[in-house]
Amino acid sequence: MSRNILTVPIQKVEGQSSAPFQDLLAVEEPLEIRLGKSTISITMRTPGHDAELALGFLFSEGILPGPRDLQDVVSSKNLLTVHLKPDVEVDLDRLKRHFYTTSSCGVCGKASIEALRMQACPLASSESAVIASSVIHRLPAVLREDQRIFERTGGLHAAALFDSSGALLLVREDVGRHNAVDKLIGAELLAGHVPLQDKLLLVSGRTSFELVQKALMAGVPILAAVGAPSSLAVETARRFNLTLLGFVRDDRFNIYSGASRIQ
Amino acid sequence: MSRNILTVPIQKVEGQSSAPFQDLLAVEEPLEIRLGKSTISITMRTPGHDAELALGFLFSEGILPGPRDLQDVVSSKNLLTVHLKPDVEVDLDRLKRHFYTTSSCGVCGKASIEALRMQACPLASSESAVIASSVIHRLPAVLREDQRIFERTGGLHAAALFDSSGALLLVREDVGRHNAVDKLIGAELLAGHVPLQDKLLLVSGRTSFELVQKALMAGVPILAAVGAPSSLAVETARRFNLTLLGFVRDDRFNIYSGASRIQ
Repeated sequence: MSRNILTVPIQKVEGQSSAPFQDLLAVEEPLEIRLGKSTISITMRTPGHDAELALGFLFSEGILPGPRDLQDVVSSKNLLTVHLKPDVEVDLDRLKRHFYTTSSCGVCGKASIEALRMQACPLASSESAVIASSVIHRLPAVLREDQRIFERTGGLHAAALFDSSGALLLVREDVGRHNAVDKLIGAELLAGHVPLQDKLLLVSGRTSFELVQKALMAGVPILAAVGAPSSLAVETARRFNLTLLGFVRDDRFNIYSGASRIQ
Repeated sequence: MSRNILTVPIQKVEGQSSAPFQDLLAVEEPLEIRLGKSTISITMRTPGHDAELALGFLFSEGILPGPRDLQDVVSSKNLLTVHLKPDVEVDLDRLKRHFYTTSSCGVCGKASIEALRMQACPLASSESAVIASSVIHRLPAVLREDQRIFERTGGLHAAALFDSSGALLLVREDVGRHNAVDKLIGAELLAGHVPLQDKLLLVSGRTSFELVQKALMAGVPILAAVGAPSSLAVETARRFNLTLLGFVRDDRFNIYSGASRIQ
């Protein structure tokens, strides 16, 4: 088995029936890229071709002028250090202004999961937050109905909040799926509704670690996605007993974690 | 027309015929989020609900404890400043370690487009880099054939490099589409193939500004995507005469920029 695929036992739901299944997940892990002693980037990536990833990134950013300016690349697990030849000048101050951050996670799973344990709202138990699989089957159609911009551009992600009866409470859209979720959480926060204890959050795309982290911080007990979850999304959901659903479409879905909240 | 949709004139190709069309794009623009005087994040987002985006982001990161800790939010175009109440303590040093950067762009379109002008390789002209539409129609099937992990997990993005005859040269996959492109560019850089002057880069998802920027830096004249481009992807491609194709599937595609390289 390749290092970039992970097999996990899940529950597969089709209509009203459910059966155990061995699912394949794309592996997601943080990679820290250093230029000498400076951390340049920490990205959530699928392991493999890490040196190429770092060099392509540094070249795209205009930091590495070309292959001849490279001295060497030293790799250990999830940390990659690039050394340029001594005569290559890099202005790190200028560099920083050309990066933007996209939320969360952090230098390594460990620190970040520790922070979640300290800060995340406790999730509602399976006694107080339960949803019927027949309700879940209906959600994608309700979202599509509402998601008019997506239908017109094909270019937006959506995040939608539902109650346990399947009623749509709020939708936010954005080119970035983390932004759509942030907009939704921000709106609910201002309305005084956080923690979102008996709600379900549906996202139109895939689920990364980042989205699981946001769901946990907002105290929403069920995160459902039309697409696939990453390995780190599943691992984190299991650790915090978040109910994580994937491939919610066509009268089917997969339960990756927290099956007791699904009826 | 909403501020988050933009209409642009494009060429729509179906089989061997082509016709002008008015297409709708999801708007992508940078938003800088400041906490007092400190820049906390610069994210590429779809305008609208910016205050909610910023507050959801700060809450998810554990920076904003709750709605009562908020003093006010001051918004001007693409810059949003959040003030917390004076008694809320934020440790910015601790904070920085919990962010990771994802590549490119930069504080604002202007600085970043200026940097592209200075650093990007000049693109091959339409005389030396031309590709037949019949070749383009075949590319998604070739990529799917090769992209075995994606087929198995549904969770990976792919970036593939083709020559002008449609021969597949290299594929890289990752949970992040920018990472898949970085891996591909890094590999070609090490092989001494950059600038990728007479090649085509195909990506499995949507096209953001970030991917256009990477294509320009690597000197690849044609960027094709199975999904939709953002407004800023199209705007940047037009400015630098990159050929940008979207919705490349089912014997159809859209030409957003650089139509002279398509035969």
